[in-house]
Amino acid sequence: MADVLIQHIRKFVAIDEQDAPTILSFFQSITLPKKENLLREGELCKSNYFVVKGCLRLFFINEKGIEQTTQFAIENWWLTDYMAFQNQQSSGFFVQAVEKTEVLALHFHVEEQLLKQFPQLERYFRLIYQKAYAASQMRMKYIYDFSREELYHHFAEHFPEFIQRIPQYLLASFLGFTPEYLSEIRKKSVLKLV
Amino acid sequence: MADVLIQHIRKFVAIDEQDAPTILSFFQSITLPKKENLLREGELCKSNYFVVKGCLRLFFINEKGIEQTTQFAIENWWLTDYMAFQNQQSSGFFVQAVEKTEVLALHFHVEEQLLKQFPQLERYFRLIYQKAYAASQMRMKYIYDFSREELYHHFAEHFPEFIQRIPQYLLASFLGFTPEYLSEIRKKSVLKLV
Repeated sequence: MADVLIQHIRKFVAIDEQDAPTILSFFQSITLPKKENLLREGELCKSNYFVVKGCLRLFFINEKGIEQTTQFAIENWWLTDYMAFQNQQSSGFFVQAVEKTEVLALHFHVEEQLLKQFPQLERYFRLIYQKAYAASQMRMKYIYDFSREELYHHFAEHFPEFIQRIPQYLLASFLGFTPEYLSEIRKKSVLKLV
Repeated sequence: MADVLIQHIRKFVAIDEQDAPTILSFFQSITLPKKENLLREGELCKSNYFVVKGCLRLFFINEKGIEQTTQFAIENWWLTDYMAFQNQQSSGFFVQAVEKTEVLALHFHVEEQLLKQFPQLERYFRLIYQKAYAASQMRMKYIYDFSREELYHHFAEHFPEFIQRIPQYLLASFLGFTPEYLSEIRKKSVLKLV
């Protein structure tokens, strides 16, 4: 299963066949049951997580005590609280498995050793962060530009696999809706298709 | 002036003294008068920009025909439309000088040559993108968590230099306010301080 990571890295940089097992030895494989936390608010954010199979979400608990999801990560995506990770501080977020999930964890200090031994992975992570940052600039644009209903339709069109896979109450939270409002929008969409 | 970039790179990775002029030769120095565009919506996004002196903003024109600012960059920050840059596509944004601004432009294809010749810069850009992405995760949290007034106060507390420097109508646009609403909040803040 860990080969998924090697395949992903190879989309961006070359890795010699004999180096693959060595690279993987820097990672810790973790399997989480549904709703298990990888990271809790207030805990030191030690690791960055690559999703091999399953789905993670990043959320915080808002002033009203409600869980607010701000990101999801499915197969081949990385996720953690990057501010807490890079500063090796306690996190302001939770990272939780949405479904049964297998991740490869890369510890902050182990990452430094990995990058020293395989400097071509600096390029891999540079490209991963560049893509993630590019996506966040686009997301910021959509948040300013779209109504809530347009936001749902945009999301449904560009990420149909999410709409199918993610529980409705989490999708509603991510889009800043109540579950009832999301349900209304979906009903309207279905009527348009009939 | 271009030494500002070398100093910035040296905060993250080592550069030999004799390599500094060679590295700088990959960049194009551009000086922009206030309100001049570096990039327009619909144009191919060829370059990434490092601000040596001055201030850039990233904005798009919304459905109502109004300029919506989503990001600023002052000295030592990089800015472009990263989705358009990495895919070498036409941009959905404008990049404009807020005041008289000096930038160093790094062309997409020239960046590849630079990184081939100085692979340690992969680490520099990896860390720059990691920091930018971390900040965008926090910003997303604030957008979900804070009222508009709280957003202003958070911004004023963490980035006081912006509040002083950036024209009020641009700050209002960035925070998603009308200029009138921003003016009201500021009056209230002053009254609290009295």
